[in-house]
Amino acid sequence: MNERIDVHRACALLQQHDDILLLAHMNPDGDTLGSCFALYYALTGLGKRVRVACSDGFPQRYAFLYPQEPPAEFEPRFIVAADIADEQLFGAALEPYLGRVDLCIDHHPSNTFYARETLLRADAAATAEIVSDVLDGLGAACELRAATCIYTGIATDTGCFRFSNTKARTHTVAARMIACGVDNAAINYAMFSCKTRGRIAVEREVYNTMEYHCGGRCAIVCLTQDLLLRAGADENELDGVSSIPTQIEGVEVGVTLREKGNGFKVSVRTNNIINASDICGKLGGGGHARAAGCFVALPRAEACSKLLALIERAFAEAQA
Amino acid sequence: MNERIDVHRACALLQQHDDILLLAHMNPDGDTLGSCFALYYALTGLGKRVRVACSDGFPQRYAFLYPQEPPAEFEPRFIVAADIADEQLFGAALEPYLGRVDLCIDHHPSNTFYARETLLRADAAATAEIVSDVLDGLGAACELRAATCIYTGIATDTGCFRFSNTKARTHTVAARMIACGVDNAAINYAMFSCKTRGRIAVEREVYNTMEYHCGGRCAIVCLTQDLLLRAGADENELDGVSSIPTQIEGVEVGVTLREKGNGFKVSVRTNNIINASDICGKLGGGGHARAAGCFVALPRAEACSKLLALIERAFAEAQA
Repeated sequence: MNERIDVHRACALLQQHDDILLLAHMNPDGDTLGSCFALYYALTGLGKRVRVACSDGFPQRYAFLYPQEPPAEFEPRFIVAADIADEQLFGAALEPYLGRVDLCIDHHPSNTFYARETLLRADAAATAEIVSDVLDGLGAACELRAATCIYTGIATDTGCFRFSNTKARTHTVAARMIACGVDNAAINYAMFSCKTRGRIAVEREVYNTMEYHCGGRCAIVCLTQDLLLRAGADENELDGVSSIPTQIEGVEVGVTLREKGNGFKVSVRTNNIINASDICGKLGGGGHARAAGCFVALPRAEACSKLLALIERAFAEAQA
Repeated sequence: MNERIDVHRACALLQQHDDILLLAHMNPDGDTLGSCFALYYALTGLGKRVRVACSDGFPQRYAFLYPQEPPAEFEPRFIVAADIADEQLFGAALEPYLGRVDLCIDHHPSNTFYARETLLRADAAATAEIVSDVLDGLGAACELRAATCIYTGIATDTGCFRFSNTKARTHTVAARMIACGVDNAAINYAMFSCKTRGRIAVEREVYNTMEYHCGGRCAIVCLTQDLLLRAGADENELDGVSSIPTQIEGVEVGVTLREKGNGFKVSVRTNNIINASDICGKLGGGGHARAAGCFVALPRAEACSKLLALIERAFAEAQA
């Protein structure tokens, strides 16, 4: 129980079992879906009955990963979770499988080892990178649909090879998938270049509301409900908005306020010096050194000046 | 004269000669600079005197590629051009070297073979990808500064591995450079994630002025002189602005007008169906099927409606 295993053992388990249910985490992303469907194609290719399940369904954005055939109907006899660090990420529809996962394949260092056996490689950029080794072990590598899933998982979890989780090995796996025929340019256009009109409207409002403080070292964005209504954007189109301010040259602290009920949900991001968690902690929130959050039940102007005072003090202390 | 050669011959030439002048093209980018400085580090490592020259100097943005030591003074006895497809791209300061290039290393299919000998590989994503083979041939691979130059050349010419020029081999070379210790995440932050305040201001104006037409299949952006003054952006900060409209979901034709003198410089980009060159050709301009330009000496409203009429007709013809 709760054993940590290697790729060899994971392959043996998958080979031994049939009627396999693959679980993706709630709010599914390219890595959990890419990992599940890569395994799906490989295991169905071995003649097994396989199905993928996700509490939030399968977003249209990732439709190119999904099989044409309708899902197989069967009572699962072996349950695999891919890219799920914690059972809390199962979501409502996967509750029947709590405590029942046989094999978890994951790259999150925070994995809680809730599964009977866990293949964890925290140095992998994406779970899909680990799955590519599993596919090799199953003798199923280099099938175009599976390769497309692996590439997508890796590309989306690394911001198209931009982030610090991108290692030499990440590029090596990408090279192999492209050699299998993956249309990397089309995937990258859809995942990274293409923006919806709603997203463009959100970015316009972010830029229009952005204010610089502390000699340009702090940028504050305030998204009111009015403004979000005007942009006509849905929740997905707000993804990653709070990382925009810290991408501006010279900005160390980026603050994004978003109106909710009687106040503002605040997200603080920092690049190098300032501890975001310290700032949010003083307002009843918390988080990590580079990304933290809190809720401020104040009107806009007061909320901003309260935050700014804390940030100015943090800069003064950092300089001391 | 004007011979096409292979990597082996290019390495032999570089090994045989000393006092080598490396030329980068005008308006230098990460690939021409990365290629030149990778060769610089490799050749100085072999004990040779080497210097890099560029008509427009070396932009601060790429300072991390440049050597600490002052440039060596010598009368060049062997001249190498890297990533320069045509002598027209030398710029004023490199005019003394017209007709005198001994070796050109390039990946542009449009290379005019102006050099005595040319190492051309049009399937390479970047000239730096070819230079990595040259460095191998020189026995100079895997030195951190050179590897940083190679990685930067490849990353910048592929939009961080996003574009269709990214092949399996491109990723393989990137993997090798990262294995040499290249800080890929820091380079990618500086090259792709980080935006100047001027650039943010330009994007804000682009979004504020954007209008959708033809049922959302055409987006028009108009940048007036007033607006650019207000944004306070310099020429560099306008780079790639005309590719923003076609990155919007559903947009097939993106038009960017930029006020110049008594009219507008027009850039037309298309994704799949419409021929941009046909549209611009009707207004006295030209270009490629997916990217073309022209000048329209008309006030804003007239310029836009003239363009829109041509685009509507192009859509009607495409549907016929």
